[in-house]
Amino acid sequence: MKSIILTGDRPSGRLHLGHYVGSLENRVLLQNDYEQYVMIADVQALTDNFENPQKITESVYDIALDYLSVGIDPEKTSIFIQSQIPEITELTIYYMNLVNLGRLERNPTVKNEIKQKGFNEGIPAGFLCYPISQAADITIFQAEYVPVGEDQVPMIEQTNEIVRRFNRIYQTECLKECKAILSKTGRLVGIDGKAKASKSLGNAIYLSDSPEEIKRKVFQMYTDPEHIHVQDPGKVEGNVVFSYLDAFHQDKEEVEELKAQYRKGGLGDVTIKKILLKTLTELTTPFREKRELFSKKDVQDILFSGTQKAREKANVTMELVRKSIGFSYFS
Amino acid sequence: MKSIILTGDRPSGRLHLGHYVGSLENRVLLQNDYEQYVMIADVQALTDNFENPQKITESVYDIALDYLSVGIDPEKTSIFIQSQIPEITELTIYYMNLVNLGRLERNPTVKNEIKQKGFNEGIPAGFLCYPISQAADITIFQAEYVPVGEDQVPMIEQTNEIVRRFNRIYQTECLKECKAILSKTGRLVGIDGKAKASKSLGNAIYLSDSPEEIKRKVFQMYTDPEHIHVQDPGKVEGNVVFSYLDAFHQDKEEVEELKAQYRKGGLGDVTIKKILLKTLTELTTPFREKRELFSKKDVQDILFSGTQKAREKANVTMELVRKSIGFSYFS
Repeated sequence: MKSIILTGDRPSGRLHLGHYVGSLENRVLLQNDYEQYVMIADVQALTDNFENPQKITESVYDIALDYLSVGIDPEKTSIFIQSQIPEITELTIYYMNLVNLGRLERNPTVKNEIKQKGFNEGIPAGFLCYPISQAADITIFQAEYVPVGEDQVPMIEQTNEIVRRFNRIYQTECLKECKAILSKTGRLVGIDGKAKASKSLGNAIYLSDSPEEIKRKVFQMYTDPEHIHVQDPGKVEGNVVFSYLDAFHQDKEEVEELKAQYRKGGLGDVTIKKILLKTLTELTTPFREKRELFSKKDVQDILFSGTQKAREKANVTMELVRKSIGFSYFS
Repeated sequence: MKSIILTGDRPSGRLHLGHYVGSLENRVLLQNDYEQYVMIADVQALTDNFENPQKITESVYDIALDYLSVGIDPEKTSIFIQSQIPEITELTIYYMNLVNLGRLERNPTVKNEIKQKGFNEGIPAGFLCYPISQAADITIFQAEYVPVGEDQVPMIEQTNEIVRRFNRIYQTECLKECKAILSKTGRLVGIDGKAKASKSLGNAIYLSDSPEEIKRKVFQMYTDPEHIHVQDPGKVEGNVVFSYLDAFHQDKEEVEELKAQYRKGGLGDVTIKKILLKTLTELTTPFREKRELFSKKDVQDILFSGTQKAREKANVTMELVRKSIGFSYFS
């Protein structure tokens, strides 16, 4: 039996190349060796977008199509919508008894996000409790592995604390602890060189961008403002074109040669941008071709059957959970 | 169409005469004029008994039988088990986005209970959030009236705040505000005269007590420790026998006469206890007779069909809720 992986995204806009190197690429590989569940986390996205649900619901379909376009295979991976598996909320409620307020307030990931978001009217209970909800997401599928970034490791720790506590209190082994699979790649910078590529900053290259959009964005990329003439020596560090070449160019040796030449002088921005454009075109052309294969109805059907499969799995765990607590009166 | 009432109890032991005067008596009347839902709140009971679920699950059947014995009629009232309607947890999760931590911490009922319970390891998130869960209980059934004690009024206010906020944000009218029906009677004291009758203090007369147990408890009742001889003047205030006569004796005039005589002197404790015993026997004999009519299987069936009916009702609301948020992708 294959080990289970749970992963997913908050639907709050189309996916971009940062998502590809950070996680999607990996999922395409992992689906061959694991039973993989990919969750479109609309309920979680609602915790900080509750006044703007359209943003979420409009992204669900886009994200599913992004998944399919990069090669996530619905035969190997169950792509599902979180809200359509209400059993997750049931498990969350049971977990909420096992986590104290102080523990939630100390969660480093949440603390950090609360600072960033600056909730004006105070912290919504739903947001504070989302690590509990995440624990339910992971454990309801009996996931053993969860691919995460370094900053999400406290979430895995919180999950395993809950698992141990639940299993101890209800004298069961129905819940499994999970392990983080740390993503190898750091975050991809935006085309403006500022922080990471993100929807809100409008500095990302989307998986669904047309060749023209990609070209425009590559030629807009921040390089080295002091590299004015081709002959001038240029800086590679902080140069977005090289960050993207590092991330996407297949021939690492060639990239190192280009860097050396750029540093020395004699390599123009237009040249390296053309090389990157070729690289990104080679990468994304199959995505665009694959994308064309799926009608809106196909995506809908894939989401429906993925959700059904995931829900069956979730129900197996919930039966055990209810039985452990003693809340299975009619079965 | 009849207005809807939601009411219920946390299953943490058999019900006693305090429950009868405080709420059950009223429910037997209300079921004629309202569409009544009576919830056995096992999920809520778990918030402060999560380490002791047997206490809850063992009480569910007892409480249902207590209901039936006093005349709650399953043809008129849907008796249901909270945990078997997981849609309530789904609604709770959506409501959690609409209530801030500070608001929860200021809830006077919860503040008070937290003090009483003295959670050693900190306040569990589930306990702090139970007013949100209560709001889901009430509104998922479109209840317009909720019979509560004075101390529960803040819960109704919290519920209506959530309703207004949800309806405003999601531009819907799918949720109804509710009104409290305040219970007329104060709390029944324990047979020891200390505070209220409660399971934990072991000072209650249970609806399921045998005539012998009732007799024993009545003769144990705290009266006036300074009323030593029959001729002595006695105190009526704080005298448990008179509290129970006030609550249960049909002839209020006779009770006033007894009080006058007791105050003056010449009325013995044994005499008033015999009068009370007769009163309580008249009250509880039909309960015991009715109790005999229901087999364990009958109670099980009644709970099953009550839960089914309640779940159908809950699902109607949830369909509207999911649609308002936009989370109805497959319908």
